[in-house]
Amino acid sequence: MRTRFVLIQTSHAGNVGGVARAMKVMGFDDLVLVQPRWANVLRREETIQRASGANDVLARARIVDTLDEALEGMSHLCATAMTPRDFGPPTRSPREHFSEVLGAGNPPGGVAFLFGSERFGMRNEDVYRCHVALSIPTAPGFGSLNLAAAVQLIAYDWRQALGGFGAPAPQAERPQADAKALSGMLEHLEQALVAVDFLDPEAPKKLMPRLNQLFNRAAPSDEEIHILRGVAKAMLQTADRAKR
Amino acid sequence: MRTRFVLIQTSHAGNVGGVARAMKVMGFDDLVLVQPRWANVLRREETIQRASGANDVLARARIVDTLDEALEGMSHLCATAMTPRDFGPPTRSPREHFSEVLGAGNPPGGVAFLFGSERFGMRNEDVYRCHVALSIPTAPGFGSLNLAAAVQLIAYDWRQALGGFGAPAPQAERPQADAKALSGMLEHLEQALVAVDFLDPEAPKKLMPRLNQLFNRAAPSDEEIHILRGVAKAMLQTADRAKR
Repeated sequence: MRTRFVLIQTSHAGNVGGVARAMKVMGFDDLVLVQPRWANVLRREETIQRASGANDVLARARIVDTLDEALEGMSHLCATAMTPRDFGPPTRSPREHFSEVLGAGNPPGGVAFLFGSERFGMRNEDVYRCHVALSIPTAPGFGSLNLAAAVQLIAYDWRQALGGFGAPAPQAERPQADAKALSGMLEHLEQALVAVDFLDPEAPKKLMPRLNQLFNRAAPSDEEIHILRGVAKAMLQTADRAKR
Repeated sequence: MRTRFVLIQTSHAGNVGGVARAMKVMGFDDLVLVQPRWANVLRREETIQRASGANDVLARARIVDTLDEALEGMSHLCATAMTPRDFGPPTRSPREHFSEVLGAGNPPGGVAFLFGSERFGMRNEDVYRCHVALSIPTAPGFGSLNLAAAVQLIAYDWRQALGGFGAPAPQAERPQADAKALSGMLEHLEQALVAVDFLDPEAPKKLMPRLNQLFNRAAPSDEEIHILRGVAKAMLQTADRAKR
């Protein structure tokens, strides 16, 4: 199964190296950095040192400007966040979630694990678009996991859940639209909801995060995204006529 | 259960700090160092920095000269070694071993996890005295786990095997709307889709059954049904204005 690790606004180059090593040791190699602090982070000395031989992961890694770019092709988004958010996705432990995701009849096509910055974690709006917030069970009063350590644990649990090395990738039955397609549809729908006076842009009241969660659960296919965009378009056209 | 982490001839002070943090985050605090490279390793800057707040673990840590001293009071010894030794204890994966140890009628009184030096791992004679050699399943061809990362994984698996810290704060179960509420919403939505000229009642093309399936997967709550009915209402009102 396609698996991607996405680091958002990472500060410490050493951590990026540690993450590359943690991924490689569990057989993963798709690393994307969103706005890292250092533009040359993939070539910095601390990075190379902490990567300790996982140079191919660094070589393959991409640096992008937006989370959207980072998530291209991914359909199941796992935030890693210690503190549950209101209106956010359900908070689950990794093992519990992984066994459920893989046990369900329709496993996702691509799974992305999102990690926020060392100091501030993930932004609410980035958490909102995820299907789940993975919370690694840690000691009460000291939940301070190092970034590379967190990646190590998630990579390990995910690899184990996948059955270890060489396990056959389960076949997706219903092709699920990727995160970009879903967020594009939601933006379209948001415009339509504003146009029909259901959504007040001045007082959005978490409507879009809520709809995002609802559609995450529905896990729409590309065809369904197409239908939903058609609905949004018809709403906008009707609203347009109403204005004349 | 008493749990101790024993680091043998560790070279890098940063790793000692990383180990302290990795232990603490999983609720362990008994750390013993056998002949570390630096006598003042517990007070070095890299150590404190990587410990990132796990200072109490460092403060409690002991430095000793021999493995014997380090193992005082421990009854079940787990080596961590990537390569199996002839004549050594059985090599097992952590999860497999932990569930067996804890499932057996007579769980040990104290468990020690032994970690060799970064460069050379554990000496054969140290491995020989252990009850098991734990081998963390890693990618073929790249089994190079950082020391703190290895401690993190073992501490996590052991904590989980011990029953964990419980799942993240259980969220209120999301009450799912009943079938009648869902079909009522779908009828409302159908009228709205006709009103905005998206659905042609003469050629409905399975649109509503498809949306029904999509919303079945989303399993909306009563509150979400309410939101969706609000959307349908706003669409109908807008369509009404468009006709005037």
